[in-house]
Amino acid sequence: MVSVSVPPPRVVIEGVTPQLEGGRYAVKRCVGETVVIGADIFKDGHDHVAARTVYRHAQDRRWREAPLTHEYGPDRWTGSFVVDAPGRWQFAVEAWPDRFRTWREHLEKYRAAGQDVAVELLEGATLLERCLDRMPKQVRIYLRSAARQLADVALPLSERVDLALSAELAERVWGPLLAGDATRSAVTYEVFADRSRAVFSSWYELFPRSQAKHPGVHGTFRDAQDRLPDIAQMGFDVVYLPPIHPIGKVHRKGRNNTPVCEADDVGSPWAIGSEDGGHDAIHPQLGTLPEFHAFVRSAADLGIEIALDFALQCAPDHPWVTAHPDWFFVRADGSIRYAENPPKRYEDIYPLNFWCENREALWTACRDLLLYWVDQGVRTFRVDNPHTKPLAFWEWVIREVQRDHPDVIFFAEAFTRPKRMYGLAKLGFTMSYSYFTWKNTKWELEEFLRDLGRPEVNQFYRPNFFANTPDILHEYLQRGGRPAFRVRLLLAGTLSPLYGIYSGYELCENTPLRPGSEEYLDSEKYEIRVRDWDQPGNIKSDVKTLNRIRRENPALQSFQNLRLVPTNSEHLLAYWKHAPGNDLIVVVNLDPHGAHDAMVEVAPGDLGIGDSQSYEVEDLLDGRRYTWRGARNFVRLDPTERVGHVLRVRRQR
Amino acid sequence: MVSVSVPPPRVVIEGVTPQLEGGRYAVKRCVGETVVIGADIFKDGHDHVAARTVYRHAQDRRWREAPLTHEYGPDRWTGSFVVDAPGRWQFAVEAWPDRFRTWREHLEKYRAAGQDVAVELLEGATLLERCLDRMPKQVRIYLRSAARQLADVALPLSERVDLALSAELAERVWGPLLAGDATRSAVTYEVFADRSRAVFSSWYELFPRSQAKHPGVHGTFRDAQDRLPDIAQMGFDVVYLPPIHPIGKVHRKGRNNTPVCEADDVGSPWAIGSEDGGHDAIHPQLGTLPEFHAFVRSAADLGIEIALDFALQCAPDHPWVTAHPDWFFVRADGSIRYAENPPKRYEDIYPLNFWCENREALWTACRDLLLYWVDQGVRTFRVDNPHTKPLAFWEWVIREVQRDHPDVIFFAEAFTRPKRMYGLAKLGFTMSYSYFTWKNTKWELEEFLRDLGRPEVNQFYRPNFFANTPDILHEYLQRGGRPAFRVRLLLAGTLSPLYGIYSGYELCENTPLRPGSEEYLDSEKYEIRVRDWDQPGNIKSDVKTLNRIRRENPALQSFQNLRLVPTNSEHLLAYWKHAPGNDLIVVVNLDPHGAHDAMVEVAPGDLGIGDSQSYEVEDLLDGRRYTWRGARNFVRLDPTERVGHVLRVRRQR
Repeated sequence: MVSVSVPPPRVVIEGVTPQLEGGRYAVKRCVGETVVIGADIFKDGHDHVAARTVYRHAQDRRWREAPLTHEYGPDRWTGSFVVDAPGRWQFAVEAWPDRFRTWREHLEKYRAAGQDVAVELLEGATLLERCLDRMPKQVRIYLRSAARQLADVALPLSERVDLALSAELAERVWGPLLAGDATRSAVTYEVFADRSRAVFSSWYELFPRSQAKHPGVHGTFRDAQDRLPDIAQMGFDVVYLPPIHPIGKVHRKGRNNTPVCEADDVGSPWAIGSEDGGHDAIHPQLGTLPEFHAFVRSAADLGIEIALDFALQCAPDHPWVTAHPDWFFVRADGSIRYAENPPKRYEDIYPLNFWCENREALWTACRDLLLYWVDQGVRTFRVDNPHTKPLAFWEWVIREVQRDHPDVIFFAEAFTRPKRMYGLAKLGFTMSYSYFTWKNTKWELEEFLRDLGRPEVNQFYRPNFFANTPDILHEYLQRGGRPAFRVRLLLAGTLSPLYGIYSGYELCENTPLRPGSEEYLDSEKYEIRVRDWDQPGNIKSDVKTLNRIRRENPALQSFQNLRLVPTNSEHLLAYWKHAPGNDLIVVVNLDPHGAHDAMVEVAPGDLGIGDSQSYEVEDLLDGRRYTWRGARNFVRLDPTERVGHVLRVRRQR
Repeated sequence: MVSVSVPPPRVVIEGVTPQLEGGRYAVKRCVGETVVIGADIFKDGHDHVAARTVYRHAQDRRWREAPLTHEYGPDRWTGSFVVDAPGRWQFAVEAWPDRFRTWREHLEKYRAAGQDVAVELLEGATLLERCLDRMPKQVRIYLRSAARQLADVALPLSERVDLALSAELAERVWGPLLAGDATRSAVTYEVFADRSRAVFSSWYELFPRSQAKHPGVHGTFRDAQDRLPDIAQMGFDVVYLPPIHPIGKVHRKGRNNTPVCEADDVGSPWAIGSEDGGHDAIHPQLGTLPEFHAFVRSAADLGIEIALDFALQCAPDHPWVTAHPDWFFVRADGSIRYAENPPKRYEDIYPLNFWCENREALWTACRDLLLYWVDQGVRTFRVDNPHTKPLAFWEWVIREVQRDHPDVIFFAEAFTRPKRMYGLAKLGFTMSYSYFTWKNTKWELEEFLRDLGRPEVNQFYRPNFFANTPDILHEYLQRGGRPAFRVRLLLAGTLSPLYGIYSGYELCENTPLRPGSEEYLDSEKYEIRVRDWDQPGNIKSDVKTLNRIRRENPALQSFQNLRLVPTNSEHLLAYWKHAPGNDLIVVVNLDPHGAHDAMVEVAPGDLGIGDSQSYEVEDLLDGRRYTWRGARNFVRLDPTERVGHVLRVRRQR
């Protein structure tokens, strides 16, 4: 509210972009990216206005500045700065009446009309005198001398006017000249700059305990380490491990999620904690902390980063249950409440009570778990079911961790209603699972992609297109066989710069627990699975080709550049991904069972090609070249041969 | 920012509507209107959530509340309240985990599955005990007793469960039950409720000095009073007077804005102030303060309100110039700066320096001028050129006046760039002039109406469609003769619930100062014009009919209900105005020179009429009835007979 006694604002600053919920949350960018700032800025009267954005990394003391410029009519001002370091950035917008430019213009007009400008010159001199303190030291001597000359009636008038209108003087006078002139946007807005893997990376999920060479043997970090070259060969750069902590023994679940557990059953890694330790311990059968370190180092040598699971829940034998029973839900009879979805109760899991009396201790302990693993060299956390823990907790803990470790990535595994998924992304999750696995028909995919492609969503939500997970084996994969796996791989890796597969995908494993279920039969969640990673029918060469193409083509390294392309077939989905000098047209046959053809419509003008000119497109998947011409071109895809094209447009030189 | 020590919010509340710039400004409504509140509300986990809006008139101490309800999937909550008094209202949104409903549902499910619910009953008892302090006094006895019974193991279990699930209990437990449960929107939003004339009124502008019965005589308030019955007959309910204050004599402008003034020239009423007084004085030739009071009372008796001009600028002989030279711009040579638009200087006007050293005194004096005229019975101010005075000043002064006088209307005469016009409306101007006078072709009008019709603009900007002003005689009127005046009158009065004419319009006065000018020849701004108000060719009966129709048809009393209707003629503009039980289809021939016909397209379904059913429309202008059928109906308009139809849809009973 404006008050007459507190100096009121001289200029109106509104509609600042980018912003989320009026500055409540940070928008997301990638390190090195240019942030374009916009604002509606205007004041009363006819004075000139000037404006700038002031910005800084949140840990810098000094603000930097960049000028804003505008178009007259719409009163829309723009400018930009580069976020050149990871972490939280702040910016605001400042504007002020440009007294010097207004004065100079008036003087010019009066002079041109042959009017007396003696008083104007004196007023200019006074203005320069009064603003001296606010000007940079290096220009003060010049300005003081200019002020003196402007006011010096002994000098010829024309000389004084020439000085007043000189470029030298104009260059040196910039910024709010007098006290109270500057108005600043009421809000300081935030931008979070993530490192590049937050935007572009290829993920592979594996259970270390399944990496042994022989069936029935519990795999270790060493075994997992031996798998890394194969994974690097496929071109992945993030390997994500389900929880690596001791697994609860009390009420442990048996194979295929049966409530009865056999003596040799290994349990679910998500039932965390036993006498061997909790979230800061390593499951003894996987190895030791030094072996974990060796595994992480070995991965790094291959260009692979290890992502851990962060699942905030406890098995009944988790050390916290005895050390901090008050961190759980204590029932009226003194017992601790199981996880429940009435009338079901999950006896192998205790949820944490984030609103317990001793909330600060619990939240701090959770933060310290993250910091512990950060100390062990982990920089990426896949967060299990974040939507079942308070949003306020996540907002707090992510800020706490990223303050000193801005390179830490949080990946939200929240499959829930859209606003909750978006809410988690807004408050700070770096990237998120999405509904991709359930979008298989053309209309489903197009609607889904249009929603994610909205610029306001792009500001904060980065989807990671996992093609399967240990929880989700979609019917499409169950029924579509190998071609279905190739289709979904190609879609995931070309639609989204972030994508992943859960191991076994490359072997086209597709047997569900039972018909109608999306669970795997003999799921690795409850038992060890040892596989032949080179078994016939695998699609590892597809994976390798795809990941190579992703690395070589900047168009596949951004999500914002996706444009759907019409085809006249309900089976052929087409889209165009554009980066400077790198245009890809991807066409995918969504039907794993049959060949289909269609006309694919891309206006040559959009590609910078003349309407009647022919041009060459090269399928990056197999190197074949085709000649295209005009707005409609024929494509036929037979899934027994190829499920799609990734066509790079070749321009004439 | 969330902190672990300050209790963090349990629930996320975002996207609250209605709001302007994140709550920076109040949205506008009419007294008696229902304000619909919306919000995105969600929390983690599976608990039920409940929400309400809390609201109050800004001068009430106590908040009232209204529940919000929601659809599950979109997490969008809505509710409403009525603004039943004029002035500033405040509202916020509150949400909390609905512990009781969650507990009750769990209990129900466990019981249905035949599980033991003894502990659940105890927990319910504890919940009721703990929330007692927060519950209204009248239910506490009931709840304490219910808690005791729920916990009483001596009672049969089924009886306790029945009580737990009873409607009686559920009805009594509502609201945030425990400390820290409630989350409130970070912002308290504002709604300004105006009285109905702010939304719907018909304006007539006249110069009192021109109301004498004989040429050459200076009119008075008494003369103006004698005109009122005629104006009331035409159906106007606001009469707006240009400034009624003493007119400066120094550098007074002559007739037709000539710089040289003859002895008998009366000067411009906007050059305010002379030895006879300033903004709080009355020009002696108009009459005395008691005569002004009589004029205002006489108007009120006829259902007419008097609106004054508020023009913050001074003639060189205004008393403030000598009493407060520091309130003006003092030049380097000690002189006071004229209004200027370099290289032009306007020697009859001094602008005020709203940022002068003694700003508080000046702003307060300006406010006191408004309060003075409020004390004289004036409740509507037409503000001259508000965009040349600081926006912060207007925001402050409007708030100051409306705090004790919420029925005061501020009408902004700002013809400037769109964001500045909208900026003034956002900060508090009740209604605004618009570009209407310059929108004469069909495409111009349609584009203009689409922009004004946007819901986000409707929240704050109320256009008043003046068909002419003393400054604007559009070429369309100059060239189109009487039919043009009828066209523009009909458009103004049926497109917008707020419209007006400046006197002389009803006589079709259309001689410009010179070709290409929008100024009137012999403008009343600089001289007295005495007219024969019943001279032949006048369109007073059009005016009367239009104002009657406006009063009788609620569809013409709102701006939000306008829908453009296609016609296949570039000359015929059609629109549909809807209110419950009142559908009007208006068709106007924009060409004053020729007859045109077209098919007008209104889907009968939109009118609640069967597709193949015929229906009757009655032209409210002349009572003729036509039978329409289907989506396209023929209309022909010959401007020598009629310039438009105002067709009321007659439904079969």
